[in-house]
Amino acid sequence: MPIKYTLERADKTVKARAGWLKTPHGEVPTPLFMPVGTQAALKTVHPDLAEAAGAKIILSNTYHLFLQPGPAVVARLGGLHEFMGWRGPMLTDSGGFQVFSLPGRVITEEGVRFAFEKGGAPTFMGPEESIKAQNDLGADIIMAFDECIPYPADHKYTAASVERTLRWAKRSQNAHKRQAEQGLFGIVQGSVYADLRERCAKELVKMDFPGYAVGGVSVGEGHELMMRAVEHSEPFLPKDKVRYLMGVGRPEDIIEAIERGMDIFDCIIPTKMGRAGVFFTSEGKLRIHKKNYRKDRYPIDTACGCAVCKRFSRAYLHHLFEVDEPLGKTLGSIHNIHFYMELTAAARMAILENRWTEWKKGFYAKYLKGGDEGEDSSQKSGKKR
Amino acid sequence: MPIKYTLERADKTVKARAGWLKTPHGEVPTPLFMPVGTQAALKTVHPDLAEAAGAKIILSNTYHLFLQPGPAVVARLGGLHEFMGWRGPMLTDSGGFQVFSLPGRVITEEGVRFAFEKGGAPTFMGPEESIKAQNDLGADIIMAFDECIPYPADHKYTAASVERTLRWAKRSQNAHKRQAEQGLFGIVQGSVYADLRERCAKELVKMDFPGYAVGGVSVGEGHELMMRAVEHSEPFLPKDKVRYLMGVGRPEDIIEAIERGMDIFDCIIPTKMGRAGVFFTSEGKLRIHKKNYRKDRYPIDTACGCAVCKRFSRAYLHHLFEVDEPLGKTLGSIHNIHFYMELTAAARMAILENRWTEWKKGFYAKYLKGGDEGEDSSQKSGKKR
Repeated sequence: MPIKYTLERADKTVKARAGWLKTPHGEVPTPLFMPVGTQAALKTVHPDLAEAAGAKIILSNTYHLFLQPGPAVVARLGGLHEFMGWRGPMLTDSGGFQVFSLPGRVITEEGVRFAFEKGGAPTFMGPEESIKAQNDLGADIIMAFDECIPYPADHKYTAASVERTLRWAKRSQNAHKRQAEQGLFGIVQGSVYADLRERCAKELVKMDFPGYAVGGVSVGEGHELMMRAVEHSEPFLPKDKVRYLMGVGRPEDIIEAIERGMDIFDCIIPTKMGRAGVFFTSEGKLRIHKKNYRKDRYPIDTACGCAVCKRFSRAYLHHLFEVDEPLGKTLGSIHNIHFYMELTAAARMAILENRWTEWKKGFYAKYLKGGDEGEDSSQKSGKKR
Repeated sequence: MPIKYTLERADKTVKARAGWLKTPHGEVPTPLFMPVGTQAALKTVHPDLAEAAGAKIILSNTYHLFLQPGPAVVARLGGLHEFMGWRGPMLTDSGGFQVFSLPGRVITEEGVRFAFEKGGAPTFMGPEESIKAQNDLGADIIMAFDECIPYPADHKYTAASVERTLRWAKRSQNAHKRQAEQGLFGIVQGSVYADLRERCAKELVKMDFPGYAVGGVSVGEGHELMMRAVEHSEPFLPKDKVRYLMGVGRPEDIIEAIERGMDIFDCIIPTKMGRAGVFFTSEGKLRIHKKNYRKDRYPIDTACGCAVCKRFSRAYLHHLFEVDEPLGKTLGSIHNIHFYMELTAAARMAILENRWTEWKKGFYAKYLKGGDEGEDSSQKSGKKR
């Protein structure tokens, strides 16, 4: 089995877990945040700098790579790791999330007919096509092709969709040709409905995947309903498999999901915000465009040990954004990736040292003091740009 | 004296020289190419990656920094090195080149009245203002405020302009307040006129600068006239001072200028072309947009040892440019900076090993085989974007 999760310590009072996830490209600690490199690249960040910022597993997007350069080209060039020069583990999503959000897509039992953006030709993607593409791309972790439905959706539609997602999960499993090199994860759907989340999780577990994702979240439902979706799914997932909460999220979403038993996360928020000049700090978010940073000789976060904070002042970053120098986006992304990596590393340490609740309270006391200036939690990885 | 040039070996048959240039931030070998970081940043390139690509001295632009964040702010933050996190030597130009190219600028004996782009307020810059700004910025090498005239210019105008440039050079010298930390270079003007180049060079040498630049080139005059400008200036410059050919250029411009006794060079060509997907190789320029690179597993240049060529294929770079991923610009810039750094390093080695002409022939035999697809040689550093 290419993917193996080992539970190191489970908290006694909440469901938070610390563990290790073994992949063909190395073993990584969990909980773990995974930065998103949609088009086989972390936007504005050289892989050496991402690695230095602590990135361990990175994501790429089957939909985008399907379009360009095409999975067959990537396979011919030795797979995604070789193609993009990333030495650590990788994960690809199934492409479903993007395909379902396209206007004019037609869903049938077979799969989805759609036209790629930019006036593309009509295309078909079902479980077999998605898995074939992901086998070609060659990431360590690949995802079943599921129907990611919008929020809100009624119970009737969701119930029928869950059954289709289960049939597609089975077909994904059957289509998977590289079982020795890649682990295929099942995805729990079911929107906000406890009964459907339970049924989906239980049926997927019968199929025995090496890891399970909670999907269909971060689609505009908000923090509370996102947490309900986790709570409705998690009890039915095995303890000896890793749990992946897809497309999440803000630091507080991740912390609360860890507390509810989730292990790995991906989101475009840190890199997207980094490029926009919004930097995460231990005391909340810092917006570098503000005039008061013009002469500020302090680093982004005096409590941060990242390569950006050790070398550059807020004044320099303010300048880079002021004159629209691309290096500003690079440095902002590096800092934010480091923040997210430190966040999950600190969560892990707190779990191991049996001080979860104390750590969480301490984090929030500082972080929320700075205020959340209104980001929603719906910034799913690989969302159409 | 903060700037000291030591001649290591002068070729016996041509004027090529190998030497060392000592600055407050380290000693560097010459001939040397200096990458341009116009707005206190190398566009798309993190300083660690620039250093790894071999960059030793980098340039910044007084005009751009005058506008934002302002030299006083940079001074308050500890100077340009501290501000932008660059540990090696730096050079600032005087801002004159940009100011003179602005529409509506008015030149008087005092200096130049102009309005900054983007609807800026009327501003004045003369030698005193430029040197004050450069003292504030704190680069190791700073440049006299000169009149950089366009090509073509008639003899009468050029003669009057050279006299003004000489008076401004004297005023620049008098205005320079940080003689212990920064070396001020004089700039030889005179357009294409041998008598004016000679007069300008001789008068500047009487003022005794720690280094001399040949300016007023790379303004559209073409390779032949650029070489004439060097030949008309160089004989009158002292052997024990470094010679800087400003805003040059293509590899063949640099090689021919080294052969004519020039030591240091700056140009936006490698980074600008790198961002445009045009990569320098030992066999000429490679345009990564071309379809035939789509599945090409080779590096940009199989003869290149740069970090990009060691890790990434042409196919990956083609993909990055195809989907407009910023990482493509970064990798292209790194490769091209490395190419230029290797070019001047190889030239230096050839001079030291007494095989200049043989090396030059060998370089051209491979490089020109690939063809020059029509770049002109007028891409001056820091030209208005």
